[in-house]
Amino acid sequence: MPESLNVEMANRFKEFRKKVPTADELVKGILAQDQIALSRAITIIESTASRHQQASKTIIEACLPFANKSIRIGITGVPGVGKSTFIESFGKLLITKGKRVAVLTVDPSSSISKGSILGDKTRMDELVKEKDAFIRPSASGDNLGGVARKTRETIILCEAAGFDVILIETVGVGQSETTVHSMSDFFLLLKLAGAGDELQGIKRGIMEMADSIVINKADGENLKPAKLAKNEFARALHLYPIKESGWKPKTLLSSALHNQGIEEIWEVILEYIDTVKSNGFFQKHRLQQNKFWLMETIESQLKSEFYANPQVKIEMEVQLSALESNKTTPFEAAEKLLKLKN
Amino acid sequence: MPESLNVEMANRFKEFRKKVPTADELVKGILAQDQIALSRAITIIESTASRHQQASKTIIEACLPFANKSIRIGITGVPGVGKSTFIESFGKLLITKGKRVAVLTVDPSSSISKGSILGDKTRMDELVKEKDAFIRPSASGDNLGGVARKTRETIILCEAAGFDVILIETVGVGQSETTVHSMSDFFLLLKLAGAGDELQGIKRGIMEMADSIVINKADGENLKPAKLAKNEFARALHLYPIKESGWKPKTLLSSALHNQGIEEIWEVILEYIDTVKSNGFFQKHRLQQNKFWLMETIESQLKSEFYANPQVKIEMEVQLSALESNKTTPFEAAEKLLKLKN
Repeated sequence: MPESLNVEMANRFKEFRKKVPTADELVKGILAQDQIALSRAITIIESTASRHQQASKTIIEACLPFANKSIRIGITGVPGVGKSTFIESFGKLLITKGKRVAVLTVDPSSSISKGSILGDKTRMDELVKEKDAFIRPSASGDNLGGVARKTRETIILCEAAGFDVILIETVGVGQSETTVHSMSDFFLLLKLAGAGDELQGIKRGIMEMADSIVINKADGENLKPAKLAKNEFARALHLYPIKESGWKPKTLLSSALHNQGIEEIWEVILEYIDTVKSNGFFQKHRLQQNKFWLMETIESQLKSEFYANPQVKIEMEVQLSALESNKTTPFEAAEKLLKLKN
Repeated sequence: MPESLNVEMANRFKEFRKKVPTADELVKGILAQDQIALSRAITIIESTASRHQQASKTIIEACLPFANKSIRIGITGVPGVGKSTFIESFGKLLITKGKRVAVLTVDPSSSISKGSILGDKTRMDELVKEKDAFIRPSASGDNLGGVARKTRETIILCEAAGFDVILIETVGVGQSETTVHSMSDFFLLLKLAGAGDELQGIKRGIMEMADSIVINKADGENLKPAKLAKNEFARALHLYPIKESGWKPKTLLSSALHNQGIEEIWEVILEYIDTVKSNGFFQKHRLQQNKFWLMETIESQLKSEFYANPQVKIEMEVQLSALESNKTTPFEAAEKLLKLKN
């Protein structure tokens, strides 16, 4: 981006901040692919202030008819695997192909530590300069459910703003991979070759979610072990049951630092999208995800109301200690607790 | 079992059926290791009749102090893998080692089809004759939660009746493997060598639950492919993260039909129990399981009450169709539904 454009944007932003735009103005801005309007709208959605709730609903409802058209790619991998470099390299490739790319993060820990993995945007210092890229750090929130909701709503806004590809990154804290998986069309697991990582790098169940495992940093001395790791993972994936999507997960090599293997990954994703669009899984899966989030939201609300009940809290302690000393069964204890609800 | 004993038991059973024993009498019978009393008590626990509820509670409470002393082994595998033959062979081995063995099944489908996998007891026609074996088909119930509860309560009764080893078999319908896993100390996955099975035989996540994978029918012409399969699974298991138990799952071969490899499996289980008892995981895990079932029972009750609400049922249809046509978000829809609760 030329310096003059930078200055122009800064000026526009100052202008913009002077007045508080209405929800309708923000929607107009989003549909006109104005990134500043998009940013401000996301801030409203992320806000917990009650005065923002109506605006938030208005914006989402207005964006919904224009949403749903992107490819949503979830990306995970342990710290050190090179996620930022990968996303930078991958994002730039997509832009050269005429795509507009939004990068979001699900990082429930950032709300506690206040240290978001993408907070330091300079980690993607080239991608951030591209006018067709939009990088937004993790929504803040005190629980993963809240972060998930805000991220999903942000996806809707980004899609309405004409982004073709949404990359949703996660560091893998707690259940965050499952959360990202449940809002992605395609789930990519970045891995490293080498000792220890195979054994400890990923949590249970993550490998089974992957539509593709990419061994990153496959360059220099690391190339040979990376190739071995690729074969090992391919063999392991082969043992899994066939996915509902009909897709057989693919194992690939990349060196994000040297922009190698990145194009192949995009081709695999396109092949996947092609497969699942022609067999009907793409739409079916998105509807399943919507239903999942509907149920998830209802059920987590029911639970949190129940456990927040002061009487339940007191009795829970009593029942847990009875359980520990084998003086009750889980079912008997549950019955006693449930009686307090009404 | 000599024929005379058989006749004696039949006579005792006839005698027993004449009068309805009290809960206290049943408890006495259970603690005296009387299998007929145990059977009748389980029937009361399984009963949905309200008149049995108090008796059921009395029996469980009285048995609880004597429970918790067995080794609980979950066993799963696709139909055709030879589960019945395996359990017969394994059970008989345990009896020669002086153990008393109870075999339970979790088969939520049997309540619908009325065709329990163990309903036809002749499938374990040798084990069933042993006085130190107790074989009980699946609890009936219209949902897996109900079946799970009844199975867990049956475990308590079996333990109070002095059974040292509880084998909990599942055919793997729906979520039944997860259910059995959550009530077992040790989880055994039976597999077959050969094409197709590796790809389709097991559901996602099951392999990660296994403490041991046993390739059964490793005999005759099948021995070579079974050895290959064993190595393949050993390699795949190696890729998984280390289990909280600190246990590295082991891959073994067996031919239940020829009683081969069965002793080794028992040795592996003893090694496991030794490991987890000395690192504290055994007790910790049982407490975790109790807590899991406490929460599970509470939460499934909260959900079923909510979804059974007639207003919720009507509005759910409306919201699902709005979701399908992208006219709402899951979160907006959930809010509307939750308002109906109060």
